[in-house]
Parts: sequence; C-alpha cells; structure tokens
Amino acid sequence: MTTRAIAERASVPHGSVSYHFRGKQELLTEAALYTVEHMFPLGELEAVETLADLMPLITTWLGTLDSTDPALTGVLMEAMRESERDNPLRHRLATMLRDYRRLLADLVHAEQHRDVVPSGATPAALATLIAAAGDGLLLHALLDPELDVAEAVTAMGTLLGRPPTT
Amino acid sequence: MTTRAIAERASVPHGSVSYHFRGKQELLTEAALYTVEHMFPLGELEAVETLADLMPLITTWLGTLDSTDPALTGVLMEAMRESERDNPLRHRLATMLRDYRRLLADLVHAEQHRDVVPSGATPAALATLIAAAGDGLLLHALLDPELDVAEAVTAMGTLLGRPPTT
Repeated sequence: MTTRAIAERASVPHGSVSYHFRGKQELLTEAALYTVEHMFPLGELEAVETLADLMPLITTWLGTLDSTDPALTGVLMEAMRESERDNPLRHRLATMLRDYRRLLADLVHAEQHRDVVPSGATPAALATLIAAAGDGLLLHALLDPELDVAEAVTAMGTLLGRPPTT
Repeated sequence: MTTRAIAERASVPHGSVSYHFRGKQELLTEAALYTVEHMFPLGELEAVETLADLMPLITTWLGTLDSTDPALTGVLMEAMRESERDNPLRHRLATMLRDYRRLLADLVHAEQHRDVVPSGATPAALATLIAAAGDGLLLHALLDPELDVAEAVTAMGTLLGRPPTT
C-alpha cells in the first residue's frame, strides 16, 4: 500500500498526507501510537487519586480491550512487533510507558503517605509492577479469553493495600 | 521461503521436513512454541518450592531474555502477533500459560498454608497476577532497556510475603 492509496481511502488529497508524514513508515508509526494512546487514555489515569479507584479502572480497560475490535488489539501487537526493528517507534512507546509509570508512582507515593500502601517498596518499583501487571494481564487475556483477569486485578489491589492491623 | 528452502538451509532432506510438518505454517508454529518453551523452562519452575526462590528465578529469566539474542525475542513477539490470526498457535500458547499458572498456584497455595503468603486472595488469582507481571515486565524491558525490572520483581516479592507481625 502506498501513501497515495491511503490518501484515496481516507478521501483526502495526497498532498495533505505527504505534507504531514515523511513516508509510509512515519504514517504507520503515528497510527500505531494514536491507537495505543486511545486504548489507555492518560487523562483517565490522571483523574485517579486513590488505589481503590485505580483497580476498577484497570479492570474496565482490560474488559474493554479484551472484547474490543480485533483490529485494535492487532495494531497493539503489531506496534510491539514493529518496535523491535523501528527505533523511533520503540522510543515513543517507551516514553508513553514512562508517563504512565510517573502517574502511577505519584499515586502510590500519595497512598504510602496516607498509609494505605505499605512503604516496603519504592513508588517507582510499585508503579513499574502495576503497569507491567496490567499489560501482562491484557496479553494473557488476548491469548486466553477464558482467563479471569478481574480477580487478578482485585488480588493486586488486596496485596497493595495495607492489611488491617489486628 | 518454502519448506524446500528451509530443508536446504538445515541441510536435511526435504522429505524429512514435509514428513514432520504439514506445510510451512505448522513448521513455523512448532518453531515458535519450541522457542517460547525454551525461554521459560517449565522444569526450572517445577523445582521451585518457595516464594523466596521464585522471585530470583523471575529476575534471572528477565535479565537473560532482555539481553539475549534479539532473534529470540523477535520470535516471541512474532508468536504473539501471529496468534491473533492463527487459532491453533493461540491455543497452544494459552495451554502453556495454563501450565505455568497451575505450577504457580500450587506454590502460592503451599506458601499460604505455611502462612508466608497472606490468604486474602485465591492461589489462582495470585498465580495469574505473578505470571502476567512477569510477562509484562519482559515486554516493558524490551521496549525500555533502562527500566529497572529487578526492583519491580523484588517489590512483588515484598507484597506477596506476609508482613512481619509487629
């Protein structure tokens, strides 16, 4: 497929496609990043302030993506696969992940301050763990649609929450 | 590439390739599964009996794979991508994941019995969480080689271990 064919399918002049993107590779990179960004809206995560609100958001994301348009998850898989040979794409995806982890680390830090999350691990380490567990659960749910990912997210919330002092 | 070309590259008679595999697709599926099975040897996991031994094993696996032959992680990514359109491959990968989760659930169950892991979540839910976190960390490490996955695994061990009663 050429950028000309893409312009035709989108019913826009070819000039507007070639003006915005330096060739097909850049167009595909932008399309992949746009899709990934819309799968996990950063704004929704930004609005979350407590661990109790975070876990349901992750479960909702997983449920939506699992049952969503296969083309969408196809783009996600393709972006991962492409990132192996496409350095700019990998950098952009890595930067996106860093933004998520930074937000998660802020949330964990605040909850540790409120004594909701135990302080035995750093906010950065826990943020990496939460983000990885979420993406790993999505991957496993796509491979095995019968997998109960919701109970795994609940388990993560239980582990992260400080156990009631008895 | 044809099965004939593959047989030539492997210096084996074409008959032995066509005898063992029903065409190129099946050969590629078997190659992908073989690679994935050797990336995470089930036997190593079977030998682990405690949470304290599990976390270092996960960190070792992540470290090995992260710095390993890019062709190997390429096969992993490709297998994930292909599983979207290849049902038999997806089933085989899902079955493999179930085997891992079953072993992890047995380990978690034993550690809950020994009062090492808190019993606020089921062994199955915690096993799903541990397996997903491991795979998610691998994915993130491949996208972002600077990411400290070891501290995230340590954090997971801390969360899973029952906090000392004070």
